[in-house]
Amino acid sequence: AQSNVTVYGLIDGGVEYQRGGAAGSVTKVTSGMQNASRIGFRGAEDLGGGMSALFTLENGFALDTGAALQGGALFGRQAFVGLKGAFGTVTLGRQYTPIFTSLCGVIDPFACGLAGNAGNLMSQGGTAATGGGPRTNNAIKYAAPLTSGMMAEMTYGFGETAGDTSSLRTLAGQVGYTAGPLAVRLAHNNVNNAGATSSSKVTTLGVKYDFGIAAVHGAYALNKNAVAGNTNVAQADTRDLMIGLSAPVGAGTFLASYIRKSDRTAAGNDASQVALGYTYALSKRTNLYTSVAHIDNTAANNAPGFYTAGNATDAGSGDRSVNIGVRHTF
Amino acid sequence: AQSNVTVYGLIDGGVEYQRGGAAGSVTKVTSGMQNASRIGFRGAEDLGGGMSALFTLENGFALDTGAALQGGALFGRQAFVGLKGAFGTVTLGRQYTPIFTSLCGVIDPFACGLAGNAGNLMSQGGTAATGGGPRTNNAIKYAAPLTSGMMAEMTYGFGETAGDTSSLRTLAGQVGYTAGPLAVRLAHNNVNNAGATSSSKVTTLGVKYDFGIAAVHGAYALNKNAVAGNTNVAQADTRDLMIGLSAPVGAGTFLASYIRKSDRTAAGNDASQVALGYTYALSKRTNLYTSVAHIDNTAANNAPGFYTAGNATDAGSGDRSVNIGVRHTF
Amino acid sequence: AQSNVTVYGLIDGGVEYQRGGAAGSVTKVTSGMQNASRIGFRGAEDLGGGMSALFTLENGFALDTGAALQGGALFGRQAFVGLKGAFGTVTLGRQYTPIFTSLCGVIDPFACGLAGNAGNLMSQGGTAATGGGPRTNNAIKYAAPLTSGMMAEMTYGFGETAGDTSSLRTLAGQVGYTAGPLAVRLAHNNVNNAGATSSSKVTTLGVKYDFGIAAVHGAYALNKNAVAGNTNVAQADTRDLMIGLSAPVGAGTFLASYIRKSDRTAAGNDASQVALGYTYALSKRTNLYTSVAHIDNTAANNAPGFYTAGNATDAGSGDRSVNIGVRHTF
Repeated sequence: AQSNVTVYGLIDGGVEYQRGGAAGSVTKVTSGMQNASRIGFRGAEDLGGGMSALFTLENGFALDTGAALQGGALFGRQAFVGLKGAFGTVTLGRQYTPIFTSLCGVIDPFACGLAGNAGNLMSQGGTAATGGGPRTNNAIKYAAPLTSGMMAEMTYGFGETAGDTSSLRTLAGQVGYTAGPLAVRLAHNNVNNAGATSSSKVTTLGVKYDFGIAAVHGAYALNKNAVAGNTNVAQADTRDLMIGLSAPVGAGTFLASYIRKSDRTAAGNDASQVALGYTYALSKRTNLYTSVAHIDNTAANNAPGFYTAGNATDAGSGDRSVNIGVRHTF
Repeated sequence: AQSNVTVYGLIDGGVEYQRGGAAGSVTKVTSGMQNASRIGFRGAEDLGGGMSALFTLENGFALDTGAALQGGALFGRQAFVGLKGAFGTVTLGRQYTPIFTSLCGVIDPFACGLAGNAGNLMSQGGTAATGGGPRTNNAIKYAAPLTSGMMAEMTYGFGETAGDTSSLRTLAGQVGYTAGPLAVRLAHNNVNNAGATSSSKVTTLGVKYDFGIAAVHGAYALNKNAVAGNTNVAQADTRDLMIGLSAPVGAGTFLASYIRKSDRTAAGNDASQVALGYTYALSKRTNLYTSVAHIDNTAANNAPGFYTAGNATDAGSGDRSVNIGVRHTF
Repeated sequence: AQSNVTVYGLIDGGVEYQRGGAAGSVTKVTSGMQNASRIGFRGAEDLGGGMSALFTLENGFALDTGAALQGGALFGRQAFVGLKGAFGTVTLGRQYTPIFTSLCGVIDPFACGLAGNAGNLMSQGGTAATGGGPRTNNAIKYAAPLTSGMMAEMTYGFGETAGDTSSLRTLAGQVGYTAGPLAVRLAHNNVNNAGATSSSKVTTLGVKYDFGIAAVHGAYALNKNAVAGNTNVAQADTRDLMIGLSAPVGAGTFLASYIRKSDRTAAGNDASQVALGYTYALSKRTNLYTSVAHIDNTAANNAPGFYTAGNATDAGSGDRSVNIGVRHTF
C-alpha cells in the first residue's frame, strides 16, 4: 500500500537576529525562515474516465523545539481530500486562502518567507476564527478546469454555528492569468465575525513579469478589519503597495522588495518595509539563504499598531531582522 | 529500513446537515463520516519457526481542521506491538474493545459509520477512564490460534492505580464463528470505576447472514452503567435491539437499520433510530456515500437522556442528520 | 520523493511491577522500557564535493496510550537539519546533550534503559528550561571531522531571552576515543538559569572495555544544580560512581550495574542502585527483555530526595522495579 502515498517535506533552520523589540534584541535558532518546516503525506488515484481522487495531509513543526505549529494541530498546514475531473477540482478540508496562494505563491519575491515576508505588513486573508493565518477550516474549494493560462477558484468555509449559517462563514476566490513571463492574480477573502455583524475583507491584485535578467513584482491590497499575516496587528482600514524584484545572480537568486502600508483610520499606524535577500543553491533540493529587513513604524515598539520583521514562521519581535540558514526539501 | 513499515490511511470528507439540536440546525464540512479519517504505520517481521513480530501505530485526525482526534493523542486510534505464533497472538498497548471489533467490524451494516452508526445508541464498550470510546489503554490482548471459522480473544486492561489493582481495570473478551454466509459474535466488556466500587458492563450478541441478494444483520445488547459510543449518554440499565440490511445495488451498496433502545430505569429514556444509506464505488479504494438517520427520543433535546444522530467521527447535535461525502483509502 | 526519506522506528512494550512508592505498589503495561518507543523520518542528500545535507525528525510516543511524549511535541526526541563536509558536521535544532550520547549511547551497560537505567540516579545533562531531560532546544552542534578513533563535538543552545543573551543558554561538549575494545568519553553540560545568576553543570567521564567474554563499564560524574534524568530530583552538589558489566550469554546479553550517588550537601540524600537485566534476541530487529533494579535511598519515599527505579520512559514510582517486555525495530 506504500506506493499509494508519498512522504514529502521541507526542513529549514538557521539563526536570526531581531532588533528593535520592546524587550530588547534577541538572537535565535529559528525554524522555517525561508519556508516553514513541514512534513506531509499526499497521493492521487486514477479513477478512469479522466477522473482522479487526491489528498494532502501536511504538518507544520518547529525544528528548534520539535513541537507542532498551527496551535498543535497534527495536519495544521493542509488537510484535504478531493476529486478532479472534466468538471474541475473539488476539495474539502483545511485549505489555504486564495490571498495566500496568490500573494505568497506567485507575487511576493520573498514568497512570504525570509526577512522580507510580505506577510510582515500584508494580510494573508484568514482570521483566528477560521483556523488562523492563511488557512480556512471546514472549506470546500472549487477550481475551474480552465486552459490557456487562465485560472479561477472559489472557496466557501462553513461557519458551523448552530442556528446561524452566516456566523463565521468564509467566502473567497481568485482569478488569474499566467503566460510566458507574465503572471497576474486577483484574490479576495471575506470572513464574517461571530454573529455576522461585520466581516474581514481583503482584496489583493498582484502582477509579476520576468524580463529574464530580472523579474519585477507588484501588488496592491485593500484591507477592512483584517490582520497582518505575521503580526496580527488589527487593520480596520488600510491599503498596501508592494514592489519587488528577483534576479538570478550566480548559482542563486537576489531578492528585494519595498512595501508601504497606509492606515486610513484616525490611529494612522502607517508602516513601510525594505528587505533584501539572497538564496544560494547547493543542489535542486538544498539551498543556503540570508536576508535582512527594516520596518519603519509610525507606532512605537510597545504600541498595538507596531509591525514586526518576521519570517515564514516566526512573527518577529522588532522592526529589524537579519538571518542566515539552510533549507532542505525531500 | 523503509521496507519494514507500511504507511496506510483513510481520508473521508463531506457535508452534513444536522437538525433537531437544542441550539438549532447546523451544516458542516465533516471529516470521517463513513469511517474516521486516519493515517497509520504498520509492519510485521517473520522471526522463523512460525513466529512473527507485528505492530500498528494509527492516528486519527479531523480533515476539516487538521487536528488530531482522541484527545490529541498522536496514535490515539491504535498503538500496539505483539508476537504471533503457534500459541496465538499476544499484543500490548492501546487497543480496540471486543464490543467494537464485533459490533462495528462485523455486525452493524453501517460499520459504526454514516448517519446510521449503531454507536449513536449502542455502547462500544469503553469508558472515559480507559481511554475513551471503543478503546482500552494499557491493554494486553490474547487471541487464540483457532481454525475452522472459530475465533476467541481476551483483553486485560491494567487500571495502573497505585495500591489498588482492581481500580479502573478492564476485563473483556469475544468469541465468534464465521462460515460462508454466516457470522456470529458474542462480546463482553467490563470496566471497573475508580476505587472498583462498581463496573460498566456491556454484552453484545450479533449475527449476520448473507443471502446473496442481501445480507440481514441483527444484534442484541445488555448495558449496565455504560455509555452510548457517540453521545456519551449514561445508561444505568438498558437493552438494545438492532436489525439491519445491506444489499448490492449497481456499483454500490444499500444500507438500512433500525435500532430500539429500552431504558429499564425510572428515567425511561427510550429511543429508536431508523437509518438509510448508499455507498457508490468509484474504485476499490475510493467511494462516494450518502446517508440519513432519524432518532426518536423520549427525552427532550436539551435533556441529558437525548441521543444524537452522529457518524463515525462527529457525535452529532440533533435527532436527524443527512450527509454526503467521499472516502479514499491508501 | 519517497526515496529521499526513510521511515524508521522502535516499538517497545511490556509489563512492569513497581514497589516501594509512597502510594503503594503498581503494575503497569509500560511503553519503551528498554528503549523509548519512537517513529522517525530521516534522510541525506549528496551535494557533491564531499558535502551532504542531512536531517532527522523523531517522535516519541507512549504505546500504552498512543499519546506523544516530550510534553506532546511532535518531534520531541530529535529534530535537526545540517550540513556535513570536510569541515565537519554542523546541525541545528533540538538535539541530544553530549552527556546523554556518551553516558547512554556508549558507557551505561543498560544504555539508559531497562530497570537499571543510569538515569535513575545520574543526570543526562538537560534542564526543564532547555527542553527537558537529555535534549537541548535551539541548539547548534558542531562535530569535528576527526579520524583514528577520536571524536569531539560542541553544542551551543540559544537562551532566546530578549535583552539577555546569557539567560538560559547552554554550553556543552564532548571528547572521546574509540579503538578496538576500548571506548572513553568525557562530556560536559552547562545550562544557565533564567537571568544567568547560576548554572547547572554536569561533567561525566566514562570508560568501557570489552574483554570478549564480558565488557566492563565505568563512569564518574560531578553534578552542580543538576537533576537526575528520570526522577528530576534536584542535586545541588553530588558525585556519581557507576560500575557495570555486559556479557553475551546464549542468544542474549546479560547486564549488571551498581551506581553510588554521594550528596555533598547538608541534606545528605545519598542513594545507590543495583540492577540486573537480560535481553534475548529473536532476530536482529526484535528481542525480549527482563530486568530488575533496587535503589537504596537515604531519603524516605515521600521525601523530595527520593530516587525512583524507572526505565527508558517511565520515571518509576518506588525504589524497586521488575519488568518484562518485547522490543521491535523497523
